[in-house]
Amino acid sequence: MNVFASFEPKIPEAYRDSKFLFLANIDPVLQRRVREAMPDVRLVAGDTMNYWIKDHRAALLEVLKGLDILLINDTEARMLAGNNNLVLAARAVLALGPRTLIVKHGEYGATAFFSSHSFSTEGEYAEHIFRAPALPLEEVVDPTGAGDSFAGGFFGYLASQSELTPAAFRRAMFYGSVMGSFAVERFGTERIQALTRKEIDDRFVVFRELTHLD
Amino acid sequence: MNVFASFEPKIPEAYRDSKFLFLANIDPVLQRRVREAMPDVRLVAGDTMNYWIKDHRAALLEVLKGLDILLINDTEARMLAGNNNLVLAARAVLALGPRTLIVKHGEYGATAFFSSHSFSTEGEYAEHIFRAPALPLEEVVDPTGAGDSFAGGFFGYLASQSELTPAAFRRAMFYGSVMGSFAVERFGTERIQALTRKEIDDRFVVFRELTHLD
Repeated sequence: MNVFASFEPKIPEAYRDSKFLFLANIDPVLQRRVREAMPDVRLVAGDTMNYWIKDHRAALLEVLKGLDILLINDTEARMLAGNNNLVLAARAVLALGPRTLIVKHGEYGATAFFSSHSFSTEGEYAEHIFRAPALPLEEVVDPTGAGDSFAGGFFGYLASQSELTPAAFRRAMFYGSVMGSFAVERFGTERIQALTRKEIDDRFVVFRELTHLD
Repeated sequence: MNVFASFEPKIPEAYRDSKFLFLANIDPVLQRRVREAMPDVRLVAGDTMNYWIKDHRAALLEVLKGLDILLINDTEARMLAGNNNLVLAARAVLALGPRTLIVKHGEYGATAFFSSHSFSTEGEYAEHIFRAPALPLEEVVDPTGAGDSFAGGFFGYLASQSELTPAAFRRAMFYGSVMGSFAVERFGTERIQALTRKEIDDRFVVFRELTHLD
């Protein structure tokens, strides 16, 4: 028996004027219902997984049509597109609806595939790719929640910006990776809950040093 | 029968005053012999593989003591160190002799682990890590030689520099990735042989855009 079969997500009154909506990994029928209950959001991101891709494809495809950003991992992107080449898979996924696809590679970071509709400022890129690293860590205590922490950092940074420019998306990718790197350092949400803004900004600098030539 | 059992590498006269030596993947006994035949080189890099790590460990450990830079892949680094955590594995490998370890991640790029002895300019880093991406490619025709092309680009760039600074190593990592990305586009050495300097420099710019925030 599916214990979630009768689950009906209710959007609290205080959330109804949110401008940014993240549809975490759950039955696409529910994702779509939440999406439709919030018609005035500015940006919608979503997550999904192998189970929905394989056995609930029709419902998932309806959700994808309404997404600005899809965040999934390598295996999911390849499965969704039916193509093992990541670039071709990304192009196929973008054709299904999302303006931007972010593919998470676990300890190897994440890659963003942008389309001509990714940004609020027009005409800056036709098709473009950006890679953010993951931080090599001496100890990974609990990888659970790394992907959702990435989504939180990524989306939280975008929500703080007035314009969704390519530069904002790049920095958002770094903030996502920063939050993912903290999440895995302790069990559950322990590390994230204890986090200060200074620690986040300091680690952002570490990520820059990890990747930048100068 | 091992057809290489009686192979004796002979160093051509014209190579004897080389300042940069790359010991490609072969029996560590032969690597060591070549190393000893060239006592005046300025920088020595080496490669190896699972077979030598597993069954010829003693001979390999002798080679590692004489290396400035070791270039291997994830599986090899973990196997050599006996540790699945990449940061701890890297630290263990650096303790075996190499001043710098470069771990190649295939389509996810490469990570350089530096020690306090990595650079000719003293005291710039105690321990430091740098990550270079791989270029997401629509078509990978032949991955054979990608690692050696990386080594060539990396080492070739270093050889062009008067000082082995952290900045030089970072740019060398990018040039390695650039050459690896060309190598896989055609069979064998076809693409590398047809390459112009302008194509290399243009792709270096692409790698920068792929990773840099601004």
